Order: sequence, then C-alpha cells, then structure tokens
Amino acid sequence: MYDIIIIGAGTAGMSAYKEAKRQGKKILIINAESWETTCVRVGCMPSKIFISAANRLHDIKTSQKVGLEIKFESDTSHVMQHVRKLRSHFAASILEQVKSWDENDKVSGYATFVDQNTVEVDGKKYQAKSFVLAVGSTPNVDEDIKKELKEKYITTDDFFELKRVPKSIAIIGSGAIAIELAQALQRLEVDTTVFARSDKIGILTSENLQNIAKKEVKKELKILFETLPRQYIKENEYISLTYQDKENNEQTIKVDYVLSATGRKTLLSTLNLENIDSKFKDSEKLPIDEHTKQLGDYPIFVAGDAYTTTPVQHEASIEGRRIIENCIKYPDIKNIKTVTPLSIVFCSPEMAIVGQSYKTLTKHNKKFTTGFVSYENQGRSLILGKNKGGLEIYIDQQTRKILGAEIYVYQAEHFAHQLNWLISENITLEDFLEKPFYHPTMEEGIRTALRNAKRELDKTAK
Amino acid sequence: MYDIIIIGAGTAGMSAYKEAKRQGKKILIINAESWETTCVRVGCMPSKIFISAANRLHDIKTSQKVGLEIKFESDTSHVMQHVRKLRSHFAASILEQVKSWDENDKVSGYATFVDQNTVEVDGKKYQAKSFVLAVGSTPNVDEDIKKELKEKYITTDDFFELKRVPKSIAIIGSGAIAIELAQALQRLEVDTTVFARSDKIGILTSENLQNIAKKEVKKELKILFETLPRQYIKENEYISLTYQDKENNEQTIKVDYVLSATGRKTLLSTLNLENIDSKFKDSEKLPIDEHTKQLGDYPIFVAGDAYTTTPVQHEASIEGRRIIENCIKYPDIKNIKTVTPLSIVFCSPEMAIVGQSYKTLTKHNKKFTTGFVSYENQGRSLILGKNKGGLEIYIDQQTRKILGAEIYVYQAEHFAHQLNWLISENITLEDFLEKPFYHPTMEEGIRTALRNAKRELDKTAK
Repeated sequence: MYDIIIIGAGTAGMSAYKEAKRQGKKILIINAESWETTCVRVGCMPSKIFISAANRLHDIKTSQKVGLEIKFESDTSHVMQHVRKLRSHFAASILEQVKSWDENDKVSGYATFVDQNTVEVDGKKYQAKSFVLAVGSTPNVDEDIKKELKEKYITTDDFFELKRVPKSIAIIGSGAIAIELAQALQRLEVDTTVFARSDKIGILTSENLQNIAKKEVKKELKILFETLPRQYIKENEYISLTYQDKENNEQTIKVDYVLSATGRKTLLSTLNLENIDSKFKDSEKLPIDEHTKQLGDYPIFVAGDAYTTTPVQHEASIEGRRIIENCIKYPDIKNIKTVTPLSIVFCSPEMAIVGQSYKTLTKHNKKFTTGFVSYENQGRSLILGKNKGGLEIYIDQQTRKILGAEIYVYQAEHFAHQLNWLISENITLEDFLEKPFYHPTMEEGIRTALRNAKRELDKTAK
Repeated sequence: MYDIIIIGAGTAGMSAYKEAKRQGKKILIINAESWETTCVRVGCMPSKIFISAANRLHDIKTSQKVGLEIKFESDTSHVMQHVRKLRSHFAASILEQVKSWDENDKVSGYATFVDQNTVEVDGKKYQAKSFVLAVGSTPNVDEDIKKELKEKYITTDDFFELKRVPKSIAIIGSGAIAIELAQALQRLEVDTTVFARSDKIGILTSENLQNIAKKEVKKELKILFETLPRQYIKENEYISLTYQDKENNEQTIKVDYVLSATGRKTLLSTLNLENIDSKFKDSEKLPIDEHTKQLGDYPIFVAGDAYTTTPVQHEASIEGRRIIENCIKYPDIKNIKTVTPLSIVFCSPEMAIVGQSYKTLTKHNKKFTTGFVSYENQGRSLILGKNKGGLEIYIDQQTRKILGAEIYVYQAEHFAHQLNWLISENITLEDFLEKPFYHPTMEEGIRTALRNAKRELDKTAK
C-alpha cells in the first residue's frame, strides 16, 4: 500500500510528487495521456508565445507613436510553428524532470476509483492511505455544435496545433482566455469576431475599469456583447454563423474556424468517485472544502484546477506542495489556500487583480476608498507609446491598509507582483507613499493613484 | 527678509518651493535661464523618449525572435522632432505649475551670495533667514577639445537640439548617460563608437554582471575600453579622431559629432559662496554634510544634484521637500537621506541597483550570500524574445534579510521597484519565497535567484 497516490501529473500533481518524495513517502503518480502539463501543452506557455508574436507585430504597426516611420510587409506564416517549437523547448524540461523520477513511482493511464483506498488503471489495482486528485480540467464544448462543425470547431486543446494562423475566426466567450487569444489573433491580421454571452471582458470586476477596457479593446477588435450565434452551418471551406445584431437584424458571417473559449470543466468526473461514496455522483456538487481541499471526510484532497475558482498555475503549484502535509497528517488537516490572490490576463494592456477585488470588497460591505489613475497621459507610458488604461487601488478607510487593486495597463504583470507583495506585507497607504518612485517610470502612476486615494480619505476623515 | 530663498527651480527647487509654500513660509525662488528643469529639458525625459524610439526599431529588427518575418524600411528622420514634441508636452505641465505660483515668489536670473544672508540677482539684493541651494549640475566639458571642434563637440545639453540623428558619432564616456545614448544611437542606425577611460559600463558594481553586460553591449555596439582619442581634428564636414588600439596601432575614425558624456559637475561654483566664508572658494571641497545636506554651520542646505553621489530625480524631489524642515527648524536639523537606494540605467537590458550594491557590501565586509540567476534561458524572457542578462540578490547571512540587488535584465525598472520596496519592508529570503510568483513571468527568475541563495545559505548553515 502506498502512502499517497497522486492522480494527474500536471502542475499540481508534479508539485505534490516532489514534496511527497522530499518527505520520503511511498508514492505513486498516475497520469493519463501527455506528461507535459496543461500549462505547457495548451495553456500558459503556448498562449503567451502566440501573444508575444502578436504584440510585436502590433508594436511594428504602431511605431509612429514613438517617432518612427516604418514601411513593412509582415509574414505570419511561421508563427504557429514558432509557438510549437518554443513550447517543445519548455516541454522538454518538464519531460526531463518526469524522466528523472523513479520508474516504480509512475503509471500511465486513466485511473478510476474502486473504493476509498483503491484505484484501477488498465485493469490493475493500486492502493493508498491517501490520494491527491490533480486531474485538472478540460475546455467546455458544445456537443451539438461539435457534431455540426467537426474539426472546424476548436478549443485551446486544438488551437495550437493549427498549421497556420487562419484567415478568419469566430471566438465564443469573452473571459480571460477568449480575450487573450482574440486580441492576439486580430493583431496577427486574422479577421476575428468575438461573441460574448455577457457584457464583460476578462476578469476586471470594477465597472470603471471594465468600461475603459471595453472601449480600448473595441478599438481593434470586433466584439459582440450579449450576442451568441443562433446558427452554425458548415459549408465547403468555411463556417457560416448567423446572429441577431443589436437592431434585431439577422447577420451572417463566414469564418474559417469557431474557437470555443467558454471556460473549463473539472475532470474529476472521470474518476468514478461514486465508488467511494454514492453522493459523489455529480462532479459539479462534490463536497470539497475550499480551504483544506478535502473531499468529504476522506483522506482524499483535490489540488490544482480540478477544483478552484482561481485556476492559476502558481496556486496549483503551491496547493500541490501544501496538500501533501494534509495527506500525511490526516485527519489533522489545515487550510492550504493562504496566498494573497493574484490573477493576470495577458491581453494588451494586461489585466490583473491582486488582493481583494472591487467585487469582493463591495460584496462584503467593506469600507474602502478607491485611488484611481488613468494611464492615458502618464509620462513613462507616453514615452513608450503605451498610454492606455488605468488602475484602481483599494484602501481600507479604518486601517489605511492596501486591500487590493485592479489593473488595466501595459505590462500589468509587474504591477501585479509589486502590489501583491506589498499587500501581503500589510502595508498602509502612508507607508507606500514614502517609498521611492523612480522617474520616469510607470510606477509613478501608482503613486498618483495613492495620492488620489489619500486626498479622498483625508477629506472623509475631516 | 524672506524665511527661505531657494536658488534653482529644477526638480529639487520646485519640490522645496511647494513644501515651503505648504508650510506657509515667506519664500523666494530664483532661477537662471529655463524654468523647465534639467530633467525635462535635457535629462530624464528627452533621453527616455529617444531610447524608446531606438528600442522599438530594435524590436522590429529582431522580430524573428518571436516568430515573425518582417521586411521593412525604417525612416528615423522624425525621431529628434518627436523627442522635442513630446518633451514640450512634458515641459508645458512644468511651466504651468511655475505659472501658477505667486509672481512675487519668483525671480529670473543668476544669484550670487553677498554674505550669509544676502544674495544678489542682476544688481538687486534679497535677504533670507535660510537658503536652499538647488542649482543643479552641468555636463563636464573639455575646453581644449571644445575650442577645436566647436559646434561638433556636444553634450546632453546640445544633443536633443540636433535636427536629425547624425550618421556617425563618437561618445566619450561609458557611464549611465553615455551607455544609454550610445546604445540608442546605434539602434537608430547611427554608426557609434564609444571611448571609455575605464573598463566598465553603466552602474553595475558586481564583476559578474559587469562581464555579462559588457559581453551583451559589445554585440551591438563598438566600445573601446581603456581607450580615449589622442587627437581631435575638425575637418570640413566631419571630425577625425585618432586613438591607439589594443595592439598599439594608431587608428583614425571620422564622425559627424563627438558627444562628451563624462559626468556632470556642480553649479555651486557659480554662487560666489566664498563671500559667505573664504573657505568655500573651492566648490569641489565644500563642507557639506552628506546626511543633513547642510553647508558648514550655516542655515544653508544643498538639495538635488548640486551635491550628491546619486543624481536621481526622485531623490532630488524628496530632498527638496525634506530640506525645508531643516531650513525651518535650524539649528535643530536632521538627516534627510533615508530612502532605500534605487538607481536605474535605461539601456537595454536595463541596469539597476537597489539597496546596497555589491561594492558597498564588500567594502563594509558584510557577510552576505549572492543569489544569481541568468535570464538567458528564463521562460517568460524567451517568450518575449528578451532572454538576456541576469540578476544578483544579496542576502545577509545572519538575518537572512535582503540587503540589495544588482539587475541587468529587460525592464529592470519594475524589478528595481519590487525589490527596493520589499527591502524597505525588511523582508527575509524565506518570507520572499512564500510570496506568489505568477506563471509565466519574469518575476519567476527572481524566485530562482532566491532559491539559489537559499541553497547556498543552507549549505553554509550546516
């Protein structure tokens, strides 16, 4: 009997494996299909490589903003190949790690539970005292549309396998992944149309920043809010999509592909968890504790994006590591989700939420003051030709501590770390304002937001 | 009699003025020539605008690194015009501020001291209880070379007035300003040769990072270390420079301009400080306290780059503000230099030093461990096609606190703030490693450096 069986060798599973090994436990890791992780194969990595090419082309097109006159011809026919080549480079280092693991620790295949201590893979049974379920998630697919459009209806699982960027595409969805890819596709000269069920894009919960972002994104991208295609028809070379526009007129567009980017669903459903407990039949309603990640009262814990509201790689990695502690110390288990929230969308400008979002603060009736700054006239941003967007910082009116921030500016990824790290140090507005802000940098915009908040707070305090 | 007379309306002077005004003091600010500040007129701003254009062109040239094939023709003839146009935009907001000040508070002209309480401007005398000397600095010039080369021998005071980027240029110096401009010029297709008295570039004090930086910079730029021209001759259309190469052969190059970027000298010498005290004749040997910025025992304080080893704009601004406290409370004065050091050079990759430099730590025999990471194979950097350089983080072996860092990576400006802010929070290595690092970002490289340091420290601790 193993101490721990880990199911899934993605980011969470690999992290769990390494920690369990470090602790000298007898472990088995079972993985279905590729050992390359979702992140490297179809997630973080290929999407960022693709976006990087797109943003570079956009920089070339907009170089007049920095005083250059450029006549150019672009050839994007190698982009998909470049994506796969660099992805292979990243995959190689993952596979090398996996290869270095003890052969006896690894099994390839689909695991299903037989009972609470036993899983079966290809007819063979394995038993353990505890389990880590790190099976990950898979893109949502509309089976009816898939039946009609076949290979022309794709998800992020298929997208990075395309030989070339298509001429045209329709994207269903306006969340993080949808908006990242849609904007990148358009920047790579693909005629792109986005159909969004909601009237929101990306992750920003502040109405002010949502409005700024929507206005900005619409400048380059055709995006239809609160509109979904009513009909999908596969014709010879293309897909014909019919939808009703805002004036109630029927419109038809023809595209090469339809990319469904409407979220992901857990793969916990593949594990036959009902063999542990008949109440576990519906994988959408599993009793998983969001803090300890425990399934019911069993020594079974879920890590990574198999169960999360924040499917981000670093949390999967941290969870995988910390969950081993719960496996070992069971039933004396503890909360594993303690890291200050950090989410980034790599659209352009980038979006990020750190700490508590506007929505969370509002929902909990927190008394906070918002410090806003627009980047449309921000010094360094003007210099870089990237003067777009803005950011909001939320300050607790009582303690003056920074509670969170929502960011929509060029390279928000750096601001996201800066603010996240300082929030986790419990910094106050006044302490923050005492820190140096180099000139000229985009960080000076953060100071402006802080000063705006201070002015507001000092007014309220009087 | 005024409470305070401020001499110089640059960054430090303006900041001092605003603080003194806020405190309700009777003040006068005297300024020679332009009220636009060194920063906006010939410093931070035009140089960064110029560099931004250069880096964009470099991005176009290197777009194959991100999977694009671009055929292009570039026209850089508008770059200088663009620099001046955007500079005017920034200058306008400075001038608007100055305009909003009470007319009675401002005098234009050169101030000289008559005695310790009195200055004279254009024959008119003004008296004050205390003074802020914020006269700034001016580029070093070799008068003999100037006499020979005339308008072809330029400094940063002249450079941004050029109608067009020249065809060729020689730059004397390899410090921060020299290297920023040299690299930008070369990237804008100007045939650029750098003559460096030393064998160092920029500000990095770590030998490891210096070597990485020199190797990197040399890939694009002709830079001659420990070599200065022996002869400067002005011919019809160009300048002829003769120097001895490393093999002791005499070489001659012809260039359009010679740009002297060999540091700046204080303008305190213009103030006739010897009329206060005969010991103040040599402006290089003034008894200025580096902490309180007091001149001798007088109620006279120096702010900004008129006297500093770290001529950076944000420190000038902070000093200008804090020095007013010393003016008011004299003789009960205090240290005004308390902000965690932060220096950035906007070459590419950017250089930065935060907290204590390698050199400072070594000089003080501090027991520290270095965590190094190369960015040549860093994930996000590869994705962006910016995989160059590296960084070092210095950890106190006793307390495990972060003492400082030297950085030579793409957009070090953000890392510089991140690390500076955390150093000022007294963070330890272990605390830092508990923070989230988003995937894939360049910040993950910082984590690698921290982990490398931790491994080393744990080894030492055993």
